Amino acid sequence: MDTTKLTLEQKAELLSGQGQWRTHGYPEAGLGSIFLGDGPHGVRREVVEDYSKGIPESVPATCFPPAVAIGSSWDPEVAGRLGAALGREARAAGVHLLLGPGVNIKRSPLCGRNFEYFSEDPLVSGVLGSAYVRALQNEGVGASVKHFAANNQETDRMRISADVDERTLREIYFPAFERVVTEAHPATVMCSYNRLNGVYTSQHRWLLTDVLRTEWGYTGTVISDWGAVVNRVAALVAGLDLEMPGTGGHSAQKIVDAVRSGRIEESIVDRSVARVAELARLGNDEEQGTFDAPAHHALARKLAADCVVLLKNDNAVLPLEETTIAVIGELAVTPRYQGDGSSRVNSTAVDIPLEEITALAGERGATVGHARGYSPADAADVARQADVAVVFAGTAIEAEGYDRTSLALPAEQVETIRAVAAAAARTVVVLSNGGVVSLEGWHDDVDAIVEGWLLGQAGGGALADVLFGVVNPSGRLAETIPLRLEDTPSHINFPGEAGHVRYGEGVLVGYRYYETVGREVRYPFGHGLSYTRFEVSDLAVAVTGPDTATATVRVTNAGTRSGKHVVQLYVATTTGEVRRPERELRAFRKVFLDAGQSIEVTFDLDRRAFAYWDVTTWGWVVAGGAYRIQIGESASTIVAEDGISLTGDPVVRELTMESTFGEWSAHPVVGAEFRQSMTRNLPAEQSADFEKANQDGLAMAANLPMRLFTRQAPGLFSEDTLEHLMKISRTVPVSQDEVRLPEVNA
Amino acid sequence: MDTTKLTLEQKAELLSGQGQWRTHGYPEAGLGSIFLGDGPHGVRREVVEDYSKGIPESVPATCFPPAVAIGSSWDPEVAGRLGAALGREARAAGVHLLLGPGVNIKRSPLCGRNFEYFSEDPLVSGVLGSAYVRALQNEGVGASVKHFAANNQETDRMRISADVDERTLREIYFPAFERVVTEAHPATVMCSYNRLNGVYTSQHRWLLTDVLRTEWGYTGTVISDWGAVVNRVAALVAGLDLEMPGTGGHSAQKIVDAVRSGRIEESIVDRSVARVAELARLGNDEEQGTFDAPAHHALARKLAADCVVLLKNDNAVLPLEETTIAVIGELAVTPRYQGDGSSRVNSTAVDIPLEEITALAGERGATVGHARGYSPADAADVARQADVAVVFAGTAIEAEGYDRTSLALPAEQVETIRAVAAAAARTVVVLSNGGVVSLEGWHDDVDAIVEGWLLGQAGGGALADVLFGVVNPSGRLAETIPLRLEDTPSHINFPGEAGHVRYGEGVLVGYRYYETVGREVRYPFGHGLSYTRFEVSDLAVAVTGPDTATATVRVTNAGTRSGKHVVQLYVATTTGEVRRPERELRAFRKVFLDAGQSIEVTFDLDRRAFAYWDVTTWGWVVAGGAYRIQIGESASTIVAEDGISLTGDPVVRELTMESTFGEWSAHPVVGAEFRQSMTRNLPAEQSADFEKANQDGLAMAANLPMRLFTRQAPGLFSEDTLEHLMKISRTVPVSQDEVRLPEVNA
Repeated sequence: MDTTKLTLEQKAELLSGQGQWRTHGYPEAGLGSIFLGDGPHGVRREVVEDYSKGIPESVPATCFPPAVAIGSSWDPEVAGRLGAALGREARAAGVHLLLGPGVNIKRSPLCGRNFEYFSEDPLVSGVLGSAYVRALQNEGVGASVKHFAANNQETDRMRISADVDERTLREIYFPAFERVVTEAHPATVMCSYNRLNGVYTSQHRWLLTDVLRTEWGYTGTVISDWGAVVNRVAALVAGLDLEMPGTGGHSAQKIVDAVRSGRIEESIVDRSVARVAELARLGNDEEQGTFDAPAHHALARKLAADCVVLLKNDNAVLPLEETTIAVIGELAVTPRYQGDGSSRVNSTAVDIPLEEITALAGERGATVGHARGYSPADAADVARQADVAVVFAGTAIEAEGYDRTSLALPAEQVETIRAVAAAAARTVVVLSNGGVVSLEGWHDDVDAIVEGWLLGQAGGGALADVLFGVVNPSGRLAETIPLRLEDTPSHINFPGEAGHVRYGEGVLVGYRYYETVGREVRYPFGHGLSYTRFEVSDLAVAVTGPDTATATVRVTNAGTRSGKHVVQLYVATTTGEVRRPERELRAFRKVFLDAGQSIEVTFDLDRRAFAYWDVTTWGWVVAGGAYRIQIGESASTIVAEDGISLTGDPVVRELTMESTFGEWSAHPVVGAEFRQSMTRNLPAEQSADFEKANQDGLAMAANLPMRLFTRQAPGLFSEDTLEHLMKISRTVPVSQDEVRLPEVNA
Repeated sequence: MDTTKLTLEQKAELLSGQGQWRTHGYPEAGLGSIFLGDGPHGVRREVVEDYSKGIPESVPATCFPPAVAIGSSWDPEVAGRLGAALGREARAAGVHLLLGPGVNIKRSPLCGRNFEYFSEDPLVSGVLGSAYVRALQNEGVGASVKHFAANNQETDRMRISADVDERTLREIYFPAFERVVTEAHPATVMCSYNRLNGVYTSQHRWLLTDVLRTEWGYTGTVISDWGAVVNRVAALVAGLDLEMPGTGGHSAQKIVDAVRSGRIEESIVDRSVARVAELARLGNDEEQGTFDAPAHHALARKLAADCVVLLKNDNAVLPLEETTIAVIGELAVTPRYQGDGSSRVNSTAVDIPLEEITALAGERGATVGHARGYSPADAADVARQADVAVVFAGTAIEAEGYDRTSLALPAEQVETIRAVAAAAARTVVVLSNGGVVSLEGWHDDVDAIVEGWLLGQAGGGALADVLFGVVNPSGRLAETIPLRLEDTPSHINFPGEAGHVRYGEGVLVGYRYYETVGREVRYPFGHGLSYTRFEVSDLAVAVTGPDTATATVRVTNAGTRSGKHVVQLYVATTTGEVRRPERELRAFRKVFLDAGQSIEVTFDLDRRAFAYWDVTTWGWVVAGGAYRIQIGESASTIVAEDGISLTGDPVVRELTMESTFGEWSAHPVVGAEFRQSMTRNLPAEQSADFEKANQDGLAMAANLPMRLFTRQAPGLFSEDTLEHLMKISRTVPVSQDEVRLPEVNA
């Protein structure tokens, strides 16, 4: 490969796609053309490249569980097995780079593409995304982590400006990308369609170069989402290497013109050419092979079963042990198992839930009746004759390109569930949905709820496995189920207006909001039941440095079945200068335990587990002070807790004449001297109780900049004294925890 | 008066105060010096100008009800009588300009200076502020409407940047200022301390000149809050005329230097000099006179009684008719009737609630016992022996300069209330508080709650008047009482961090938020009971133009006592391109009715009653479509409602290649032709059901800019067709309501 042989025109051409899915190749320079195929939970390689009749058919592939399900597994092993299988199928399809995973944060449950994303939490998203990318790339297929960044809605997605403050970007919307980039080195990062704080991400230099490359050390290739480039030259300068799809030479011409006219240096072109050329190493093998479709279907079933979340199971109605079972609803025979849009897979096979249930019931000598559609009367009739009714309910189509406007299930489904619950001895509801739905109007009427999300083509079998206890459910909610749409933190700022969406809730996304404001939810983040019972004990936390700690906890399967448990570790603190969420997930691990088995789980908590993004120093800061380490069954149920004290980062808190009187008084190094100097010239009897006697006045003065304080009370401090104290404040570092203002209690 | 006689040095000097409270005077130029005195609910003229021992004493003056109370009157007549009385006292004190009213919006109940502001609603704030200014200035005393703008907290108030989007400024934080400026022409507008979107308001040209003068037509003088000027020259250029207080020649020198060095034109100085000179016309009379202190005390009592809000009155326990009354609590003998800081008045007299109650009880042959302090046991003892117990409770000090951190009453007061409620036959709680307090923990235990806010020096008498029915209470909440601090819309963004406070709730301030998200509150905005009963009927609404309407409603006093009622008119709509609050107060009137009397009230609703601030066209827009006119007992209890349809403003909705496919399709003028052209080349049988057959694809394409749509489907539209349609879209105005996208229901 020798790109020096390429002309400027060829280099410029290389920076846009060749048609819809390929890069350009130059055999004379030893540079192959690679094929990019849609993901992220199945390979979508279109059969023909002709869009005149809509999106063309794609080659058959396994539809694995979409990210909404994988997220609920809380299991990087599940994400890894998915990535590896996708790698095998991509190779077989001649796809060299698979467009996934999507690690955007679920800011609103309405986002139409939430089914392609893992979680409302950046740690869950990042850990799973990272495992996926590593495994996929181990198979020799490139990944494309997307959509970078702040692409959290479909409404006006090609133009909307996500207006997000930097702390929120750093703490919520960036970390999953950061983790995937730094841990798994994806071949490509895909920019999003939207604007970020007014600038299209496709031409956002701070985003694509300063943050991604300079700060995170990314060395791979930045590609555009399909059609995301608005100004090719601006995008190139910002760090967008490869524009997709091709533009018929149009973009290449713009780049050539920009170089020829001297507007940009040719070295900028060369820089991106080198990256795209590097990408071409992924292979130029045109041959398509095969993969073991039945084995992958079986794998898809296994993975899917690990993603199911058992929300409710009153009186242990599940697993099913009854002898007559009524299966209700169209979704039991026409399953919803994937979303629509670019991720749509031409599945190799599809499990029908009713058939899978019937098969497992047959093995157990049970019989299965069915009421199709959603007629409450018919459904109640069938349900009345069975020991237990299983209602399949779920959303209508969810798709890339537009957002939902409601969390409601279709009205006829709600009526059917209520009718069945009234008629049946026991009622189980199985949900199929790409985004969170409201459980309002029927939640309390039913005995059990199985949240099946979209489970991929083998979801029917996986649901049967869970219902009958072939698999012990171990999924945990990776997103909160709120009581009402109006309770969601982004509600008042979603989906924005006049081209802008304000992220007014800041870092308080998902459970971070609900826990902080004490808002009741239907089911909290992290919730999920099991057929066995896990106990947590012996939490021991040790400080291992100024900003690090380890936590060890014992987990015991105290029930009678083997199963998997997710140990969730949250960190809570009120120390430091910014308001923190009530608690934040900082580590988690999924463990398998036989009945009665007990193990110790250890977490190493690095400084990021305690840090916040400090906009004043433009970096991560660990505030000194008290932290609570909490083990949760969910974000709202803490079952073990221990406190530690961290030294944190030393900081310099420079005092100036713009620093307030309160900041001067409370300064950990010079505050005492400052306060003394205030009373130095007073008679002893006044000096002694000066602060007590002037409590109200001092409280009111706390917010007064020194510039004004000295004007109001000239002569109280000498200029020399202030200069002296300011100098000390500039040079002596202090623990950050020390510099907080004492609370005013006048 | 001839300012041309002044030297540059003298002119520059004139633009800062002479000492703390005066302007400079130049007798040789016929220019007097005026005295500026603190308000806003009483005259504070300091006796000496010496701050070495803290804030000096001020001359005696009537402490009228602070704005928190006046706001609850919902009565411009009350505000006007207050303004007139203040004018008389100011003249008597030799104060030529009184520093009030404060019309900032109560964004958070924690703001330490809320007691100086009227309401969470801009209409209530503006109407009352306007009446106050007109009446004050009718007495020949200048007003200073403050603090302009977005000064909604005390925390870090000298530096914090209020980060507020423009629609929110225009709809929430500006309108009270706008109304006062355009209706009442205050002599001065006072800038605030804080920054607005990063720029100190004292040097915010857009705020002080573009909005205030160019848009609102203000011709008066802009003065600084005391010490708010950071850069005198920048402030001058931005439109800040008079800096207060004086800076000992320092600022004058900066101005002179700027002119001499050519950095600014002398005409900029002259412009402000002319305004300050105009201000000096307010008088240079040094003589101090007298006012009728007893008459003003009586007026203060009358005004205060009109501000009291009867929150709860189970079984008509009020007015008191019992013969033995237990008065509980320290606040009955040591009343809280004003806040602390620059508004603190040296009262001419103070009513003691216990004495006033005892006096009125005596007239009625009733006896009064008292338990001082807040000892639950003592209080219960006294309460047990009476027919009714009246507990005086309230906040500790509230003051300018810092914010509260909790809504809680002192714990011993809550315990006392609970103990009394358990012991007494009937319990009435009287609250004295400058900011909203939580009623949690005792609300349901007591029979009646009287919200007395801070009522000024005659508050004790006013409360007695209300308790015994001498005055029928007619106050209405001008701010919501929430259930919990965590429920307040600004909670997650208050008071900000790192120098910035994000107004993340946008226009959803106060009841606009609670009603929009359906959040339960303790008592809604607008709530207030009476000893009589009012009925509303015969609502008739008529459209009077494309963007105006009138509403007439009959109000009847259906009870047995005369009393005052506040007719509240709200407008609700979902039309237009931005999300509107659930409803907004657009008109109100307080009416007095004898028992059995009935009157008709008519409201003229101008275009602003229906308009929103449109950031894309940078102006007020009335969207065409349906509006509901609602008469409310409060913001959450609508008792009459009627619908109208307005034509609204014609707008041009220009289509471009960045307009989405959805916008093209839905365009009211060219949409139909556009959709037809899409199928023109298809065979008839495909063309007929094209949209139905491609429903999903079209839904996904709705957010696709035309630029990309044509790339995806080349040849579907000819360039000529698109150019033709774009041209029409640029020239034919449409009703705004027509251009909304139909909701996607794929």
